[in-house]
Amino acid sequence: MTRQPTDPAALTADLIRCPSVTPEEGGALALLEARLGAAGFTCARADRNGVANLFARWGEKGAEKSFGFNGHTDVVPVGDEAAWTVPPFGAEEKDGFLWGRGATDMKSGVAAFAAAAIDYVTETPPEGAVILAITGDEEGDAVDGTAALLDWMDKEGERMDVCLVGEPTCPDRMGEMIKIGRRGSLSAWFTITGVQGHSAYPHRAKNPLPAMARLMDRLASETLDEGTEHFDPSTLAVVTIDTGNPATNVIPAQCRATVNIRFNDAHESQSLIDWMQYEMDKVASEFGVTGEMVVKVSGESFITPPGPLSELVAKAVEAETGVAPVLSTTGGTSDARFVKEHCPVVEFGLVGRTMHQVDERVEVEQIHQLKAVYARILKDYFG
Amino acid sequence: MTRQPTDPAALTADLIRCPSVTPEEGGALALLEARLGAAGFTCARADRNGVANLFARWGEKGAEKSFGFNGHTDVVPVGDEAAWTVPPFGAEEKDGFLWGRGATDMKSGVAAFAAAAIDYVTETPPEGAVILAITGDEEGDAVDGTAALLDWMDKEGERMDVCLVGEPTCPDRMGEMIKIGRRGSLSAWFTITGVQGHSAYPHRAKNPLPAMARLMDRLASETLDEGTEHFDPSTLAVVTIDTGNPATNVIPAQCRATVNIRFNDAHESQSLIDWMQYEMDKVASEFGVTGEMVVKVSGESFITPPGPLSELVAKAVEAETGVAPVLSTTGGTSDARFVKEHCPVVEFGLVGRTMHQVDERVEVEQIHQLKAVYARILKDYFG
Ligand SMILES: [Zn+2]
Ligand SMILES: [Zn+2]
Repeated sequence: MTRQPTDPAALTADLIRCPSVTPEEGGALALLEARLGAAGFTCARADRNGVANLFARWGEKGAEKSFGFNGHTDVVPVGDEAAWTVPPFGAEEKDGFLWGRGATDMKSGVAAFAAAAIDYVTETPPEGAVILAITGDEEGDAVDGTAALLDWMDKEGERMDVCLVGEPTCPDRMGEMIKIGRRGSLSAWFTITGVQGHSAYPHRAKNPLPAMARLMDRLASETLDEGTEHFDPSTLAVVTIDTGNPATNVIPAQCRATVNIRFNDAHESQSLIDWMQYEMDKVASEFGVTGEMVVKVSGESFITPPGPLSELVAKAVEAETGVAPVLSTTGGTSDARFVKEHCPVVEFGLVGRTMHQVDERVEVEQIHQLKAVYARILKDYFG
Repeated sequence: MTRQPTDPAALTADLIRCPSVTPEEGGALALLEARLGAAGFTCARADRNGVANLFARWGEKGAEKSFGFNGHTDVVPVGDEAAWTVPPFGAEEKDGFLWGRGATDMKSGVAAFAAAAIDYVTETPPEGAVILAITGDEEGDAVDGTAALLDWMDKEGERMDVCLVGEPTCPDRMGEMIKIGRRGSLSAWFTITGVQGHSAYPHRAKNPLPAMARLMDRLASETLDEGTEHFDPSTLAVVTIDTGNPATNVIPAQCRATVNIRFNDAHESQSLIDWMQYEMDKVASEFGVTGEMVVKVSGESFITPPGPLSELVAKAVEAETGVAPVLSTTGGTSDARFVKEHCPVVEFGLVGRTMHQVDERVEVEQIHQLKAVYARILKDYFG
């Protein structure tokens, strides 16, 4: 009896039918655990605080060589369901596309590496281990997702020597981009407080608005850097300024603003926080108002400099797609920021254009290509 | 039979009991019309667009000399009625105060000049005319209030040679301030529009917020003037900046802000509007965004320079209160801005500290002092 290769498109469809909106597991990890277990993977759930995480290893713990894949099965909410032309969890196939929430981000990626791994270890059992670390919380706070999986692996003595994250990385064309790092991201919420008063008597009030305007102008005018070897320039975006005062004869007591910074490896979050604090304090003293800043760091910048891992992946991508990928560090943050602490990591996946949108869909052919890329990477890594 | 003088406190109480919240007449003008008519005043209603206005003249139309009083019987809403310690339209007298909405702004003022005028023309009929121009819409848009009364008077050939507005003018102590003019006031609503985008890719968006911050900083930083002979410096207050974008990963498309300017006789509204337009256009071109400005001019600045009218009033104030009043141009705008087009005008009234507040109240003794001041002004004017 000839073994049939695992169909990554069918597996993607099965996963789309699991309504795994963060933080719901939705049956997606259970499905993967069943398929991987049947193929000889040792599986364990590394859940934390209600978030489901799946660890699966083929081969021995502590093997000489171990290759890891990382991804997530949770998806963002469907949004305006009435705007979808298909049921968002229906996994309908039409026009060469598979439709549904998570089709690109990233049930197709998980299905492709799971299918590649199952077929590879079954057909040509390698000398080493293949590890899949799959979380149910990437789209949410991500506190108990990949981070928890890696904590659990540390505790259990499980190791990946290198890791590939299967997020969609190609802007337009399959194969064109590998991500070798990401900029860091932080947001800062500013509150400037003065003294309320009447517009006709501004000298009796302390208007927080000119101070806020000056502060936002100064922050937005700063050139943070000119870019670094592997990174675009860091950017700062003022995303909102709000007061909520409808009365033209009233000077308000308070104003709020929010800033988002995407920063490269010329900075650490703390140096940016210190700079904003300095500018805020300076403006506050110029205007005689008080300033308050609350910061949330979503992630530091990170990079796996071009080297053996990115070369391995790039070679496989070009061989399977005919496209020579660029090594990029653009875009938002990803779970690779956690994996980076564990081992060298790069990201490669298909075209993510419809991710998070209504009518999210993936070209079926791309899922097969992606599986082929992942399979070739495994073969080259262990070969 | 000896005639009893008209009690201005009792008349104030009667007026407070009329619930004349703008634009309701509430019976206040009808009450005054009855009292003035009984004292020999020729009365006419100069209503316009549902706003009630009362014109009353003692003496001949076209008399050699005519002295006018202007005021309003409408009041602002009571606000949080539960916070009042007395019924807001009850006109209770306790602790030497008369309590109720309109007690200071300005039913006491209207009652004081009506009582002074009735007693004066009855006891010592002058050679000339005494005119009372009383509106039911000062606290609202004021489009059909004193402006309508003056239009009506023009049409009817009615003239005041000089006019006293009975608004409360004293900040703390009875008699301390006469207003001879007011600064102008205008508000400008700015909308800056850019192009929405993702915080991670600011170069693909056009963020309107740094442009708005720069514009508000520039406008607020400008010294409009250093003050003029009779005026404090002009002031500009940024009263609100709003965006309403809750997403830190989104650069918004639009931002709004509002500015209020109080300007003296160094400016006309148009020169300020031109300046703001220039600054907005400059910033818009610096940032590659578009700007839109909507302006509402509440009033130009105006002044009746110190002269015979202010001397007449100041002398009477000092004689009756023992306080030498200062001639001021501070505060918000008033109906004197309309009267100014008709004849020289000054404003004098009692202490307005509780105006527009909960538990608005007036010292009963001040109502009597105010009537005495107005009576002396009439006597000196015609004497
Ligand atoms: Zn994703
Ligand atoms: Zn008033």
